[in-house]
Order: sequence, then C-alpha cells, then structure tokens
Amino acid sequence: MQISARNQFEGVVKEVKEGVVTAEVVLELPGGVEIVAVVTIDSARRLGLAPGKPAIAVVKATDVMLGVPE
Amino acid sequence: MQISARNQFEGVVKEVKEGVVTAEVVLELPGGVEIVAVVTIDSARRLGLAPGKPAIAVVKATDVMLGVPE
Amino acid sequence: MQISARNQFEGVVKEVKEGVVTAEVVLELPGGVEIVAVVTIDSARRLGLAPGKPAIAVVKATDVMLGVPE
Amino acid sequence: MQISARNQFEGVVKEVKEGVVTAEVVLELPGGVEIVAVVTIDSARRLGLAPGKPAIAVVKATDVMLGVPE
Amino acid sequence: MQISARNQFEGVVKEVKEGVVTAEVVLELPGGVEIVAVVTIDSARRLGLAPGKPAIAVVKATDVMLGVPE
Amino acid sequence: MQISARNQFEGVVKEVKEGVVTAEVVLELPGGVEIVAVVTIDSARRLGLAPGKPAIAVVKATDVMLGVPE
Repeated sequence: MQISARNQFEGVVKEVKEGVVTAEVVLELPGGVEIVAVVTIDSARRLGLAPGKPAIAVVKATDVMLGVPE
Repeated sequence: MQISARNQFEGVVKEVKEGVVTAEVVLELPGGVEIVAVVTIDSARRLGLAPGKPAIAVVKATDVMLGVPE
Repeated sequence: MQISARNQFEGVVKEVKEGVVTAEVVLELPGGVEIVAVVTIDSARRLGLAPGKPAIAVVKATDVMLGVPE
Repeated sequence: MQISARNQFEGVVKEVKEGVVTAEVVLELPGGVEIVAVVTIDSARRLGLAPGKPAIAVVKATDVMLGVPE
Repeated sequence: MQISARNQFEGVVKEVKEGVVTAEVVLELPGGVEIVAVVTIDSARRLGLAPGKPAIAVVKATDVMLGVPE
Repeated sequence: MQISARNQFEGVVKEVKEGVVTAEVVLELPGGVEIVAVVTIDSARRLGLAPGKPAIAVVKATDVMLGVPE
C-alpha cells in the first residue's frame, strides 16, 4: 500500500519494549537520529518488529507540531 | 518549555504555504530529509515561521506508525 | 508497505473537496458506509485520489474513541 | 452529546484486553468488520465496555489516512 | 452519546473562522480560558456552531502532551 | 522552546499512574478542572512529573473535537 501520510522515514529497529496493550519501538534513522513509536503489541508482532529489522516510521502531517527556540 | 513529546527534530523552514485556516510548513532536517507539518495559520504567524528560520518538529510517540516493506 | 495501523478499510473514493492546504475525501465502504478523511492536497494528488478510485482508509487504534448510547 | 467527529460506526464490543493504563477494545461492526480502539482503562470502565455491549467507534476526519494499492 | 474521551470542557463558542475544508472554532471556558479546535466545516455546520452557542471541547488523553518550565 | 500547539494550560500534577510503556498523568488546572494525559513513562520520568509539580498540558488544535448537548 502507498499511504497518504507525508512523512515516512526509513530506519532500523533498535529496541522493542512490550507492555500489556502497547509496545514502544525505537527506530534508528540514518545519521543516528532516533524516532520512538507507541503501537499496539499486536501490531508490533504482526509486523515482526525486532532489533535489527528494517522499518519505516510514518507520521501524518497534521500530527506534527512546530517549535522555535525561546 | 520542555515538552513530553519524545520526537523532536531540529531543522530549518524551507517553505510555508498558507490556506485560510491551516498552513503547511516544510522543514528541512540535517542530511536533506524533509518533514511536513500542518498547523493553524495563527500558530505559524505567532512563531514567525518563514523560509530560512530554524524550527523544531515535534511528534508524540503515539502518533508514529510503523511499516515494513511488503 | 505493510503498516502497523490496526484499522484498514477498503472502499472507493466517492468525493474529493479541495481547499488550499487540505482536501476532504469521502470513501464509500462496502454496505454503503462512508468514512471521511482530511489529508493534505499534495497527498491526495500524489495518490491520484478521484471519484471511483479504490482506496483504503487507515486509522491508528489510539485515534479511535468509543461511545455508548446515553 | 452530539459530537463533531465525522466518522461514527455502531457495533458491538467483541473483546476487551486490559493493560495497566490502557485497554484495547475490539468492536464488531455490521458485516463482521472489526475496529480496534485503545482507550484508558478508566474510560473503558466508566462506559461499562464489555463483550456483547453496543458501542460506537468515533474517529476524527483528520485522524484518517488514505492508502492506495501499490 | 457518552464518549470515552477523558477530557471534556464545557464552554461557549466565541468565534468561528471558516476555510474551504476546515473551520477554526474558539471556545471560551469558565474563567475566560480559551480552547481552539480545528474541525471540518461540515461538522461545524452540522452542530450549528456559532458565537454564543454552548459547546463542549473533547480531547482524548493520548492527544495531551505535558511540558514543564525550562 | 515555544511550541505551535494552540492550547496550553498551566496546572499542577495531581496523580501519576505508571504502566509498563505509558503513564497516565492527571493535571489540576486553576478552578479545580482536571485534564488527563497519557504519555510514555520515559517522558514522564524525563520531565520529573510527580504530584505537586507544576506542568503544562499542551493540545494541538486539530486534536480537539467539539460537541453540543443533544
């Protein structure tokens, strides 16, 4: 599927921390930048997310805020 | 303010496209990666967002989805 | 790409209404149910969304609220 | 309360899985389609969500993404 | 409908600014605090939102971030 | 950082309930109104959120829905 979300960043799974309902997944992007996602455990397992596995972080443009230094 | 959102990426505003209620802002991150945000026009103006200005993209971890290549 | 979002509903685009920054897209699902999405115009055009075209509505589980009759 | 969210789907609770903070609730819509929500446990309990109980899934239009087959 | 969203604030509509797809609605809460919502124009009209009309702002707990003074 | 999110409410942390991945934080605003946030545990700890500590609830305008009495 090609998806409407404007922001898609390819990386590699660095860490998966499982709770009861949700899992926190840390993705390492090129250049060492990290992006953190909270998804359901079922999603994390269905996608086979595990350290070392390639994955893509997807963020809808309306979910991005902007800040400026004070 | 220091904010809870886990994902914060520093960059430079590349483009601002204004609608009536919302504005689309493209931020260029180090390495040439772009991130797109849709914020209200009032926010864009209050922060003085304009091409060349430094800004930070902020994304809550629960708003990040993950994908894997099919 | 296979995506983590738990809710994926296949349908057909019924209507696209374009603003300056965002577009409202109505999808008709099997059984006549409709689902409405607001995406950026650039996304709508990049995906070629137009009446009659098949498309999939994708919703992250953390973005679904629940209600009960009062 | 009548709510602004454009997408409201009536169904029946099929399953509730409780974590410590959040609960995952699966709703079965007419035609057998399922929709999954992650809400706080307090919300799930306050609404009395339990298998067999009628409920409505509510999704804001800005939280719906669209995809097309690749 | 009684809804799962934990945060519900009653106020009075102060201002409605209509774009093509979305509308920005400012609600004044007791004590003079304001809360701003961006909803689709169709939603704003369907609910009859107009200055002086009572309304309730609804926010899902997963959409609230927290900050602390630096 | 000064952030684009239109809605920022200053209060005091009343309660923190920790799960495995996420934490639920209740903030008490002036006038006794409460607002509930679900953030990752790492965020809650990094910000040092604990009962009695001042904090700010931040909500993006596109994440606010509106309702009217039925």
